[in-house]
Amino acid sequence: MRTLLLMTGAALVIGAAPPKKPLTPNDVVAAAPASAWKAIPADELMVIDLKSGDRVVVQLAPAFAPVHVANIKALARANYWDGATIYRLQDNYVAQWGLNDSDKPWPAGVVAKPPAEYVRPLKGLRIKPLGYPDAYAPGVGFADGWPVAYSAKAGWANLAHCYASVGVGRDLAPDTGTGGELYAIIGQAPRQLDRNIALVGRVVDGIAMLSALPRGPAPMGFYADKAQYVPIARIRLASDMPAAERPSYQAMDTASATFATYLHVKANRKDDFYVRPAGGVDLCNVNVPVRKQP
Amino acid sequence: MRTLLLMTGAALVIGAAPPKKPLTPNDVVAAAPASAWKAIPADELMVIDLKSGDRVVVQLAPAFAPVHVANIKALARANYWDGATIYRLQDNYVAQWGLNDSDKPWPAGVVAKPPAEYVRPLKGLRIKPLGYPDAYAPGVGFADGWPVAYSAKAGWANLAHCYASVGVGRDLAPDTGTGGELYAIIGQAPRQLDRNIALVGRVVDGIAMLSALPRGPAPMGFYADKAQYVPIARIRLASDMPAAERPSYQAMDTASATFATYLHVKANRKDDFYVRPAGGVDLCNVNVPVRKQP
Repeated sequence: MRTLLLMTGAALVIGAAPPKKPLTPNDVVAAAPASAWKAIPADELMVIDLKSGDRVVVQLAPAFAPVHVANIKALARANYWDGATIYRLQDNYVAQWGLNDSDKPWPAGVVAKPPAEYVRPLKGLRIKPLGYPDAYAPGVGFADGWPVAYSAKAGWANLAHCYASVGVGRDLAPDTGTGGELYAIIGQAPRQLDRNIALVGRVVDGIAMLSALPRGPAPMGFYADKAQYVPIARIRLASDMPAAERPSYQAMDTASATFATYLHVKANRKDDFYVRPAGGVDLCNVNVPVRKQP
Repeated sequence: MRTLLLMTGAALVIGAAPPKKPLTPNDVVAAAPASAWKAIPADELMVIDLKSGDRVVVQLAPAFAPVHVANIKALARANYWDGATIYRLQDNYVAQWGLNDSDKPWPAGVVAKPPAEYVRPLKGLRIKPLGYPDAYAPGVGFADGWPVAYSAKAGWANLAHCYASVGVGRDLAPDTGTGGELYAIIGQAPRQLDRNIALVGRVVDGIAMLSALPRGPAPMGFYADKAQYVPIARIRLASDMPAAERPSYQAMDTASATFATYLHVKANRKDDFYVRPAGGVDLCNVNVPVRKQP
């Protein structure tokens, strides 16, 4: 019998591995000590429940876009998103949700014209450099669990647009996005958006479901009629949910020795499938491991 | 009324643009002269018709994997793929199709153990360098319409794993892939697979449909039971179809002045939405334009 075509991006091939077998990234994650994980605070988790029963969980990034994240929290707490939908799916680009085209007034506490928050000072971030070149920025690496681009010389840093990154939809003028309309990246990292739009977090659960939604037929992936919109039941912060219902996640500490090993193995795959380790890796191919609280 | 969140990866914002407005990549493509386009030969187009009526068209790359491409042509002509399905969808990774787990004998003319064809000599390729750094290879650029990585020093080149790239599924041993099982990339470019597997082409039509198929729940994205398999009606070369039914495509000549402009604009977005041009672009974010024969 002809067997299958493994192409292990995932774990599998391992199983009962003999000693000294080269590690896969998943091996490193599986063996990570408790100290390599950091709990994600419940008030930094946005829980999006679809009417279908599917759930998307977004980790917010207040260290990078504090005003936008505060807006998002205020919007969630005011039930601003009642009636919200996913209304745009552009292939290899974004899934976008919110109220779309709405006149609904902003709830109290929402800053209608937040500062751009496309970059922040590099100072104050603990950077673990990627160690490989990047086409978009002089430096790239990880800061407190997030993929970032930066300039050590100019002193700025920004969250990088990677798969599952969540950002704030805006109109052409740079100060037009509040957080009411959000998008998640569902394809090749569109890093050209870095420093041009506010990123506010990343999907830590549910991205596969978002990515598999039907693409919109209208220009830029908008659904052509409202019957195609994917209805959202509600959006809450985990911290506002009853304790027993709260989802809880941990992200790998990107300053940990385990993450350094994970990064090394990602860039130098020597497990069974690989005949030539790359000797490098792109920032957006190093997904920071996230798991449900064990 | 609050307007929409453009995030133009696509054209749109242009319309009746005033003179001197900065070009978008789509503007460059729309204005390309006929001389910037090259017809894709009909015997290098694999047409995959699903039972649903959807179609996927793959451009084959005989200059990079001649034995595998010859195998694929022989398999198509022998109707080897009767009963084939799409049986694997791994999020942010691959869609995979073929007969899966089959004992069907290879038709006449198929090389059961082709050479690895993971790299080829750099010599003989007309390279247009990308001009920006890459994490995976000493050089990257475009050769005769294809995204490639290369080493000028060591003299090798390979097709790069980008969104929509098509490769040959194989087992752990490097010579186990024939072309009977194929995959297309549906997420962030998994460049670590470069030089570890034979790429044979790219999807030039239908990738959005493939990317939106439900993800498989089994490990590595395999569908858990056969009821989930997506049935393929037939796979043919365009050259074997009746002339009136044949789809026909052109790819932009990557040695053309138009492509050089396209690449420059991709790396330096200055159209309305952008406040900070990146000044660089990743190889896999420069999708070589392909269009239906006008």
